[in-house]
Amino acid sequence: MSTAKLTIDLTAIRANWRALNAKSAAETAAVVKANSYGLDATRVATALAEEGARQFFVAVAEEAPAVRKAVGQAVQICILSGHMQGDTNLIRDHNLIPIINSIDQLLLHVELLPNQPFGIQLDTGMNRLGMEPAEWQAVRELALRLRPHLIMSHLACADEPDHPMNEKQLQVFKDLTSDLTIPKSLSATGGILLGADFHFDLTRPGIGLYGGLPFSDAQSVVTVDIPVIQTRDVETGESVGYGNTWTAPVPRKIATVSAGYADGIFRRLGPAATLYAGSTACPVVGRISMDLIGVDVSDVETPTESLQLINETRGIDKLAKDAGTIGYEILTSLGGRYKKRYVST
Amino acid sequence: MSTAKLTIDLTAIRANWRALNAKSAAETAAVVKANSYGLDATRVATALAEEGARQFFVAVAEEAPAVRKAVGQAVQICILSGHMQGDTNLIRDHNLIPIINSIDQLLLHVELLPNQPFGIQLDTGMNRLGMEPAEWQAVRELALRLRPHLIMSHLACADEPDHPMNEKQLQVFKDLTSDLTIPKSLSATGGILLGADFHFDLTRPGIGLYGGLPFSDAQSVVTVDIPVIQTRDVETGESVGYGNTWTAPVPRKIATVSAGYADGIFRRLGPAATLYAGSTACPVVGRISMDLIGVDVSDVETPTESLQLINETRGIDKLAKDAGTIGYEILTSLGGRYKKRYVST
Repeated sequence: MSTAKLTIDLTAIRANWRALNAKSAAETAAVVKANSYGLDATRVATALAEEGARQFFVAVAEEAPAVRKAVGQAVQICILSGHMQGDTNLIRDHNLIPIINSIDQLLLHVELLPNQPFGIQLDTGMNRLGMEPAEWQAVRELALRLRPHLIMSHLACADEPDHPMNEKQLQVFKDLTSDLTIPKSLSATGGILLGADFHFDLTRPGIGLYGGLPFSDAQSVVTVDIPVIQTRDVETGESVGYGNTWTAPVPRKIATVSAGYADGIFRRLGPAATLYAGSTACPVVGRISMDLIGVDVSDVETPTESLQLINETRGIDKLAKDAGTIGYEILTSLGGRYKKRYVST
Repeated sequence: MSTAKLTIDLTAIRANWRALNAKSAAETAAVVKANSYGLDATRVATALAEEGARQFFVAVAEEAPAVRKAVGQAVQICILSGHMQGDTNLIRDHNLIPIINSIDQLLLHVELLPNQPFGIQLDTGMNRLGMEPAEWQAVRELALRLRPHLIMSHLACADEPDHPMNEKQLQVFKDLTSDLTIPKSLSATGGILLGADFHFDLTRPGIGLYGGLPFSDAQSVVTVDIPVIQTRDVETGESVGYGNTWTAPVPRKIATVSAGYADGIFRRLGPAATLYAGSTACPVVGRISMDLIGVDVSDVETPTESLQLINETRGIDKLAKDAGTIGYEILTSLGGRYKKRYVST
């Protein structure tokens, strides 16, 4: 049993949803795109539907059927990429709500599924998804006659509360929508934390559910335990791993553990990563390889069967910092090889 | 249909196996660990068994059943992590060959599965997997009485042909095994390219099968096509993507494409990545987000439904270089969301 273990705390995900829900008067949806940031959309959507979530967001139509199967017909599933060529059957068969991003998408939707609900995304300055203000003006009348389910936008800098872009996008969103009675949505996790002005009718938390910044009060969701395959003594001057990039400066005890970059432990981390035996830090030595990592366990007093890479006190954002990225990418990279265990406490 | 497409050329994988097989007089195995570097061990093992491969290597026991199911009983499946606590039933039920890495593993194996074949890995200086020379001396007699299937080691610097470590490990391997009649194996792809001295009885190519360096003559295996969701004109001074990290210096046409770091397109790539419309280079602008990337398509004359990130002329090693990593990690990171298409020509 040398497969690494990924433990996912569904109770923590529920608690994070409740905590974010409590921060606003708006309805709180749940973002389960990218297979719930790699943690399993079926499990997460089931748990959050029980908790009270009634709207779920996926990135692409192909992600929706698993969510629909998990949560049944009583909830709404929105597709952030909108209605693309080839999505029509999926949208109809699984009763999905495409969030329309362009005039082209609106015309396609109206032509192919005239009675199917849809939402609208407006671009308020991020220039990523959504209609430009001028596009919106051009199709506004047509769209409003069809009573969109939702009108939304997305903040580019919500993780930086003081960034002037937040107020700027808020103002553009208000200018474009203040006269509308359609439900409005602007904020994901970061926007929820910016305060009530940003909440409107529906919030769409993602990363906060999964225990990541910018929701610093989030409960930790993920634990990664990696089995030790063998331990050896290396003498001064011996090297460990590919390319001989690490050489023992003094005699050391080195464990080889059974995970690597194929498990989303980025190769560039190398010695920037630390594993833990209880509270004892065990630095990575040498290069991370595909399935294996060398770890200095000289300070570990009792031999251990596994080491932890991510746990409650050293979470995804700590590892992200070491890797020069963000907690989101740590989660989505964990990959399919782990033995996954879902716990509810 | 906004899911990105990953096309895997099984004919190229077969050709690469044949080409590496032709480079040595040794038997040529196939390394299919990490789900065949992310490309699907079932498909790859099936193709390579048809091509003539008779030995397959996986990293951990849990990876073996899918391979066994694909290739039947007539081939051998070796487990590089050896025989770990909890592996015994898998090894017995699927008739696997653990590559024993330590005295502890040897004792466990002999106690629990005394009649089950096994191999031996020796450490010749990489200090990652395998018995130290002193350990081997201690159990050599016991092990040899049981007639191991294979005795192997692994090179730490085979990707650097001039590295003195190669000759050093070769010499250690010879010193430890020259008097043995058991089949011997030292080389993966890099070692095959080092020449006949390194080939022994069995070679174990991995990355070369999948089209990556150091096998520079490999045929390209992977193509990644990413659908365009929408295209917009941005004016001078407008920003694109999270954090406003890119601002248009002049008016530009920006496509938003439907893939991101959840699809293994490393966030750190950012503007270092380039997508292609035919032969027209389209640079990434701004940050790569989880499901979306902004791309400058100003130079594309005819609107295109998708852009390519990886293709025959711009392969995994080009992308790896841009990302500061190696082709191996590009492959294993591609992830589960792609619509996968396997082609045989």
